[in-house]
Amino acid sequence: MHIRLSQRAGWAGGQPISDLMSRALENPHLISLAAGFVDQQTLPVEPTRRALEAVFASEAEARTALQYGSTPGFVPLREQILERIRETDGPEAIGPPPTLEQIVLTAGSNQLLHLVAESLMDPGDIAICTSPTYLVFLGTVKHLGGRAVGVAMDAEGMIPDSLDQTLRRLERAGELPRVKLIYLVPYFDNPCGVTTSQTRRAEIVELARRWSKQTKIHVIEDAAYRELRYAGEDVPSTRTVDPDGDTVVVAGTFSKSYSPGIRVGWGVLPKHLIRPVCDLKGNIDFGSPNFAQHMMAKVLEQGKYAAHVESVRAGYREKLQAMLESAEEHFARLPGVEWRRPQGGLYVWATLPETIGAGPAGRLFNQAIREGVFYVPGEFCYPPEGEPIRKSAMRLSFGVQSPDRIRQGMAALARAIEHVM
Amino acid sequence: MHIRLSQRAGWAGGQPISDLMSRALENPHLISLAAGFVDQQTLPVEPTRRALEAVFASEAEARTALQYGSTPGFVPLREQILERIRETDGPEAIGPPPTLEQIVLTAGSNQLLHLVAESLMDPGDIAICTSPTYLVFLGTVKHLGGRAVGVAMDAEGMIPDSLDQTLRRLERAGELPRVKLIYLVPYFDNPCGVTTSQTRRAEIVELARRWSKQTKIHVIEDAAYRELRYAGEDVPSTRTVDPDGDTVVVAGTFSKSYSPGIRVGWGVLPKHLIRPVCDLKGNIDFGSPNFAQHMMAKVLEQGKYAAHVESVRAGYREKLQAMLESAEEHFARLPGVEWRRPQGGLYVWATLPETIGAGPAGRLFNQAIREGVFYVPGEFCYPPEGEPIRKSAMRLSFGVQSPDRIRQGMAALARAIEHVM
Repeated sequence: MHIRLSQRAGWAGGQPISDLMSRALENPHLISLAAGFVDQQTLPVEPTRRALEAVFASEAEARTALQYGSTPGFVPLREQILERIRETDGPEAIGPPPTLEQIVLTAGSNQLLHLVAESLMDPGDIAICTSPTYLVFLGTVKHLGGRAVGVAMDAEGMIPDSLDQTLRRLERAGELPRVKLIYLVPYFDNPCGVTTSQTRRAEIVELARRWSKQTKIHVIEDAAYRELRYAGEDVPSTRTVDPDGDTVVVAGTFSKSYSPGIRVGWGVLPKHLIRPVCDLKGNIDFGSPNFAQHMMAKVLEQGKYAAHVESVRAGYREKLQAMLESAEEHFARLPGVEWRRPQGGLYVWATLPETIGAGPAGRLFNQAIREGVFYVPGEFCYPPEGEPIRKSAMRLSFGVQSPDRIRQGMAALARAIEHVM
Repeated sequence: MHIRLSQRAGWAGGQPISDLMSRALENPHLISLAAGFVDQQTLPVEPTRRALEAVFASEAEARTALQYGSTPGFVPLREQILERIRETDGPEAIGPPPTLEQIVLTAGSNQLLHLVAESLMDPGDIAICTSPTYLVFLGTVKHLGGRAVGVAMDAEGMIPDSLDQTLRRLERAGELPRVKLIYLVPYFDNPCGVTTSQTRRAEIVELARRWSKQTKIHVIEDAAYRELRYAGEDVPSTRTVDPDGDTVVVAGTFSKSYSPGIRVGWGVLPKHLIRPVCDLKGNIDFGSPNFAQHMMAKVLEQGKYAAHVESVRAGYREKLQAMLESAEEHFARLPGVEWRRPQGGLYVWATLPETIGAGPAGRLFNQAIREGVFYVPGEFCYPPEGEPIRKSAMRLSFGVQSPDRIRQGMAALARAIEHVM
């Protein structure tokens, strides 16, 4: 007799990042440029306290918040999300505006990404991603028994020509019907900090539509970092270039801009995905936390959200600057070390000469820990297929540490790189 | 080109109960004896307000609550759950006491049930349940592509001899390796209100162990209603009769005893299931709502939980009495109408003469709606295999309505039954 786990449990297992994290967290003196957590100091104590006071101001409302909610979520919060979409993207959209029923609330946008992927993907099915991409989504695809296929990207995002070639290659291999979705993080992406240009978005949606031959190919826009812009102009959602409103799924969240502990995210779903996503969701968690949704609705209602996001941006802007200045100061003199200069988000992507492995078992990672700093090895962010995995890259997060600690961490990292060169 | 959903989406779809509910909810004057919601009036406004004040009393603690949490959940809450297990079940247990790492927090116990089932079951695998059983769990099994096989039950719970015969039959059919779990709701079960006796629990665990030939068969104890006891003595957890502590999984929740809107549940997992459950959970929701866990920890810390549960019990005790008295008054004179008399939970199970179909398309259901009342047709609660599906049963919930409305609803239901007889 032995314990036999499901295939899914096997697919979900062995996420390399958690082992890495626990190893690094054993030493509390280390400066972590790894975790994608948000800055503890920016967390909205006062606005949340006031929102809760408002929920509890009416006994009846407090009771409703403590009761079960519906599967798609609390209507007033969904209405406010819809209103924000109208304001930010309404005038730009070429397709039909979303309706209330298309907004579904989830426990963070991660749950929405999982539900959409699970609604579309069977084992062996293909999700196309940029190479590199958000590593947790790679875990989701693996958990579903799916294949993540990488497409080349540059400073404007996924390259349409490479996407087209990839789809052509998959068609020749008879695998086009297995392509179910194209996953984009088009705002200050994790891990590269790249924002996809509006032209690119339109080209990618157009390609998704053109290559939807036997099977519909959806485009998922993971907009987690959209509000974390520190310079430049907002780009309208990929949804605005979807002429029939049936190709793009948007995943949004209050985790980065407000609080990840409250865990409220949402999806804007094409109409045909509402029912399957809600059916799955009903089975998985029997409704999202209603209390958290009421709380978040009050935050928006009280008009304190925009001011909070502005203060969050101010904090991260300073940290990004600290990281970029430190890179200039310490990395510029190291031959072959390059880094991107994002206008938002939480990450700076740095690449080293190909000869320097930045992986968890390599000399650099261990030397960095000796110098008192650690990072996410870039190789964790690569889809297993499609493009070569670059072993000499690092994802550096400026979210958690203070500007001073960021400068110390970057200096330590430069020493480690110099040491192994 | 067409939209192709995943197999899972197909399996998860078409839950009959949601259609039924929306149809019934179209008429707000109907008295619902259907919904398993908790009584709105019992929801803990004051204890929650005080707990939140305590969370916000320290700026640092409030910030921590608003930050990401860990996958297994907030340690102080897990410690308090462990302490309560020690108090209620410690002295009785024949196996090893659980450790902190075995306690995993989830978004309601429903998420725990889903994660455990997903960790163990591949499509085609078998979950053994009582016939009838909790209809949402039947949805979970279906969503995973699994088979729910029913075993006969009586006033003491699942009948060990029937379980033994079912396992023998499955072995003869070569299907024993596909049996992954036995699902029990051993306290005031949904839908029957039956509590499984201690002797039965021990026999069922013993059978699970004996029949774990090629594959381990786990026993899941869904203890959702354990604290809703209105008469008689508590029965120790099924975990206490698991000699090696590696067979029984316990799913607990604060949803029924405190608040479903906060959505905090937990599992007590055999050690070998901690990792797979946490791996799946990390992919699905990237950690449960940390804020809700902090809030719930404060409720327990402030010592207001026990008093609240006592007041909840007092309310439901009165409602159960109203339902049982009404049944006596209105049903006793109807030939062949029988009902169980539970000591807790939220449900009374009533059966009619076999000739009267109680299903959603039947004469009784429609007549009941005309009389102003509705219920959950018992047939929804039957596993599709193993035992015959009884079409002439009703699940009556006394959770939501006031005692007066319960009496009115029961009188209306009796009129409807009389009409179709």
